[in-house]
Formats: sequence, structure tokens, C-alpha cells
Amino acid sequence: MPEARFRITYALTCGAGEDAASKARGIAYEQTVELPEACVPADLRERIAGRVERLESLGPDRARAVISYPAEAVGEEIPQALNLLFGNISLQRGILIEGVDWPAAWLERFAGPRFGIEGLRGLCGVTERRPLLCAALKPVGLSPAALARVCAEFAAGGVDIVKDDHGLADQSAAPYRLRLEMCREAVGRVNARTGGSTLYVPNVTGAAEGLEERIDLARQAGCRMVLISPLLAGPDVARRVAAESGLAMLAHPALCGAFFGPDHGIAPQVLLGDLFRILGSDGVIYPNAGGRFPFSEETCRAINDRLRGPLGSLRPAFPVPGGGIDAHKVPDWIDRYGFDTIFLIGGSLYAQPDLVRASRALAEAIRSAVE
Amino acid sequence: MPEARFRITYALTCGAGEDAASKARGIAYEQTVELPEACVPADLRERIAGRVERLESLGPDRARAVISYPAEAVGEEIPQALNLLFGNISLQRGILIEGVDWPAAWLERFAGPRFGIEGLRGLCGVTERRPLLCAALKPVGLSPAALARVCAEFAAGGVDIVKDDHGLADQSAAPYRLRLEMCREAVGRVNARTGGSTLYVPNVTGAAEGLEERIDLARQAGCRMVLISPLLAGPDVARRVAAESGLAMLAHPALCGAFFGPDHGIAPQVLLGDLFRILGSDGVIYPNAGGRFPFSEETCRAINDRLRGPLGSLRPAFPVPGGGIDAHKVPDWIDRYGFDTIFLIGGSLYAQPDLVRASRALAEAIRSAVE
Repeated sequence: MPEARFRITYALTCGAGEDAASKARGIAYEQTVELPEACVPADLRERIAGRVERLESLGPDRARAVISYPAEAVGEEIPQALNLLFGNISLQRGILIEGVDWPAAWLERFAGPRFGIEGLRGLCGVTERRPLLCAALKPVGLSPAALARVCAEFAAGGVDIVKDDHGLADQSAAPYRLRLEMCREAVGRVNARTGGSTLYVPNVTGAAEGLEERIDLARQAGCRMVLISPLLAGPDVARRVAAESGLAMLAHPALCGAFFGPDHGIAPQVLLGDLFRILGSDGVIYPNAGGRFPFSEETCRAINDRLRGPLGSLRPAFPVPGGGIDAHKVPDWIDRYGFDTIFLIGGSLYAQPDLVRASRALAEAIRSAVE
Repeated sequence: MPEARFRITYALTCGAGEDAASKARGIAYEQTVELPEACVPADLRERIAGRVERLESLGPDRARAVISYPAEAVGEEIPQALNLLFGNISLQRGILIEGVDWPAAWLERFAGPRFGIEGLRGLCGVTERRPLLCAALKPVGLSPAALARVCAEFAAGGVDIVKDDHGLADQSAAPYRLRLEMCREAVGRVNARTGGSTLYVPNVTGAAEGLEERIDLARQAGCRMVLISPLLAGPDVARRVAAESGLAMLAHPALCGAFFGPDHGIAPQVLLGDLFRILGSDGVIYPNAGGRFPFSEETCRAINDRLRGPLGSLRPAFPVPGGGIDAHKVPDWIDRYGFDTIFLIGGSLYAQPDLVRASRALAEAIRSAVE
């Protein structure tokens, strides 16, 4: 069996006095033994330190490097994998992680998405090949009753998934428990009337002590999916939720943009694609091209590919682009992104006076686009 | 009683087509109601949305903005505070958080550093006014016996705190439990012989399920302090460790550099100073000026100030600069940073053939510099 190794591709930008070869070699040591080469016993240089596999100039100050690392340097835990990826080198400059080949044997440690695309379709009762429609419940400051009314309107309009805004936590205006009960009940009432299967997805992101209780309450209330912001709650906390809760998990990218520097960070398709899928997200929200955030369509497609394409034996996960989408544009986005997409709609619904009608127009636009 | 508000100061860099006033107003809404102004009920615009308090031009494309937010928009939990700080706007560009005025009433929710500077001095048996000396145990790949030998050498040389490298987790070469037992015992043996009080500080950062066990084991082994990387483990997970474990906490900045973009992110003194202190860190490691990371001395001083200066009623925490420090330079760094500092030494010790002697030279340099 070949030795299991992480292979990481970096785009390097060299500052004054830096050369790409030394920079790559520095990374290989910094991210493992964290000592200058001369201080490292010879056997560890061979066995543990990263190995620069390839170095290719991309111009005077830029290079692409591929460095491989033994899985032994990581162990079997997500925090240490994150540390290998970007722990100390985050504190340097001009290092962008463009791609990771994850060792298949290492990936097998992780359950990944519990439901995945097919499973989540099942939860939503949408077996036909069409995208799903998700709406965000907001704003913070409304009472649980007011939020529950909005939920009911989305459900009546045929939205598949009504998720809490990730900014709804446990604030006094709508404490988690009461919001959960009232929103879940409102959606359930509409489902019973229409025969629909709209999911209400509460945001469980919160204090470390309270997370388990929030999940238990969600499960008891009959929810099948929860929202979590992995970087707010802790990436491995999110993984544990996906692995142990029995619920589907929708991941929100809050804070992630800190990693999306143009020449320093972790590319969105690695963080939101690979990593969030490894954590077990069944759907991953990201800011769509054409919305109010500066993601390019190329970036969005790369995220889609990493969420849906092969990754060990992990189930594929839904991309959930949000922003820049309305009833008029939906057919075009379906053409670009395909059926296995959840379209997240926020502001463009709230800008219309009648939420039920606005939701219905979108739901119909989706259905008629794929007929 | 005046309403409790977060006041956040931003340096804004405007891209093509952006103006600072709209950008500031956009942030105030994005980070709270997350809707365009027109879609927000009038009472929530007043009660929940952020309020641009000040806007000052810093040149054609740059401005400083102060925006205040009601504590009600945050609630009482760290993840939501992080979300207010940089959740969605992380995904935009040109937004740098330079400073935060935390509402005193909100800070009171948090225990902060359990030991603080005075308490940690007590744990180390260093009541005289001198900096503490910390050494990092590495590299990953060594056996527990080999690591324990290094620990004993540091302790024999008079190092106050021997901390695991943050890259030591639970890898097969030195599994957590065995490393903990052997290192703790090695340090204890030296302490018994010399009458010293060197602390061995194991890295407990790991999978969410196992964290509590690692802390219990550390406590049972007699450790008084643990190392955690808040961004690897989850910021609120770290807070919980500080609040509940009864142990002192040393925080490592792995991944933090993602936030330190020159014109987009969270300034180091806010993240490593304010926030890590609110989480309850008794000491916060950061890359010192003059080492292999690009922090300026001004940044380091700003971190020191935020860790040691007034912050509600939270205890002051130790700054732990690492890098660029050796026996020769120690007096100068003491002049610059003061007594209430822990100097973290790694590579410069390992580069010397005799660790005991190298440690002793440093320990003596510190003692004689303050006599």
C-alpha cells in the first residue's frame, strides 16, 4: 500500500528577498517539525517533514508549489489537518492554498455528509430532478411569532427549506427555544394543509455548553436539519454535529472570507468545498456570483465541483449559492449550475410586498425551468 | 443606565464604484438585520441595525468608520459576537477592524483569564518581577520518551513553562496520553531534584469528542495549564476550557493570520488581544517582531496593551511573544515589553548542542537583566 500523503498545491507570492524554492521548503518544515532543517534529526526530515514535490515559476515573483506531507504528521483529527493546511503559515504572507489531494485512507476516518444530495432530496420530498429552493428567515430583532408568520408564508409559497438567518442565535427578541417551537409548528401546520414537506432549519450555532441541548430540542421538535456556521462554532464541533446528531447539516460561511485573500489564504473551493464536505455538511451556503459579495462564477463552479465530485467515498453535498437570484434569473442559473443545487433566496423575496406570492413565483420558475 | 453597545472602528478601503458612506451603512445592516434598509421594519432599523457614528476620510479611497451595535443584536454568546465582528463582511473586501469598545455589561458575562498574570506567576513560583521563560517542545515525530528527555532538559535549565508544540496532538509517534504522562513525570522529577516549579503544558487541541478527556487526563497528571489553539478547536470551545477546567490556558495563534490582511480582516490586537483574553487565555502566544513572521513591533506592543490594559473587570493576561529572542537580545526585549511578559523560545534553543546549557543561559539572562 502506498504511504498515505496529503498533497497540497500552493500559489506562492514572494516578497523582497524571498525566493520560491526557499519559501516552499520553509513551508514544508514550518507546517510539520516547525524547526529549521539543521535542527531536525535526519530520520524525521525524511519521515515527517513535508516534501516539495514540484515547483513551477509563474513569473518573477510567483510560483506554484506542490508539497506532500505524511498522514502521520497530521494524525486522525480535523484540527490538526487545519493546522497542517494553514496553522502557522497563516501568519506569513503570499501563501495561497489552491488545492488539496486528501489521502483516501485518511478520508475514511470521516463519515462526511450523512444525507448528501439524495438523502436531502428525500427529506424534502423532492425526488424529481429539480433544484431545491431555500429561503432565509430574518431579521434578528423580530419576535418568535413574527418569525413564525414569515416561515408559514415561505412554506405556503412552496419553499423547500426555510432556514434561520445565521444571525439568529439566542438573542432576547427571539430566544432559540421559543423561536424553534413556533417556527417549526408554523411550518408543520402549512405542510399539513398543503401536503408539502417544507423543512424548518434552526440555527444551532451557539455557546459550546448549549449546543447539544439546541440539537436535542431541534430533534424533539421534529426538525430534520440544522444550520451551523463551522467557523463560528468550531470546525470540529460542526463535524461532531453531523456525525452524531442524526440530523442533516446546512453549513454557513460566516468568517470564512478571512481566508479568501487574493494571494494569501485557502481557496474557497478547498475551504467551502472539500473541508466543509469532510465536516459532514449536506449543503454548503456560499455567496453567489452577481450578488453583493465578490465571488466570481468560476469560484462558484469550483465550489460546486468540489462539493459534488469524487472525494474518497464521501457522499456528494448540495451547493447552496445565495444572492443574485430571482424568479427571472433562475432558469439561467439552473443552466449554469445544474439540478443538484439549492438556491438560497433572501433579500429579493423580502423586497416584495407579498412573501407567499414572491416565493410561489420562484418555486414555479424552478419547476417550469426543468420541465 | 446607558444602552450597552459595541462600538467597532473600521478602516475601509473602497473599490471601484464604492463610496465610504454607503459601505459603512452597508456594514451596519449586513452585520445585523442582513437586509437592505428598505426591507427592514422601521422599529428594527432603530433598535437593531448598526448605527454609523462617525466617518472620516483618510484619502481618496480610504476612510475610518465607527459603527455601534446594540448588545441585543449579539446576545450573550461568543460565536454571535464573532459573527457581528466579521461574519458576513469577511466575504466582502476592504474592511479592517481596528478596534472594538466592548460593552462593560456584556463583558461581565465572561470569566476571562482565571489566573491572569498574578495567578500564573503563582503557578510558576515566580513572584519576583521578572519575565517568565517558556520553551516549545518539538518536533512532531519524536517518541514520548525522546520528548520527555527534552522536557527534562528544559526544566533543568530553569525554563518556567515547557509547552507542547501546537503541532503535537495525538499522532501515532507520540499519542497524547503517553506523551502527557512521560513529559509530566520528567518535569516533575527535575522539579523535585532542583526545587523548581517548571510547568509542563500539554496541547489539548483535538477532536471535539476527546477534548474533555484530554483535559481530565492533564488535570489528573498534575498539570496546571493547557495549551489550546482557539481557532483550530473553536473559539467558544476554548472559552469553555478556560471557564470550566480549573486550569490555566495558554492560547496559540494557529490560523489567526488569515485575519491579518493589510486592508481586510481583524487587527491582531483585537483578535489576539481583546478576543483571546475574553476567551479566558492567561497567556497568548504571538509571533514576535524580528522573528520569522512579519509582525511589526508596533503590532506586538498593541497586542501587549490589549492583553494587559483595562478590559471590563477581566484579569490581565500575559503576552507571549515567540521568535527573534535569544540570551543576547533578552535585556533589550525586556526594556521594550516590560516584566509582565513570557518569552517563548523555540528554534534558537534547538540550534544549540546542549539544551540544558542553552536554557540556563537564557534563564540567567532574564534574571540578571532585571536585578
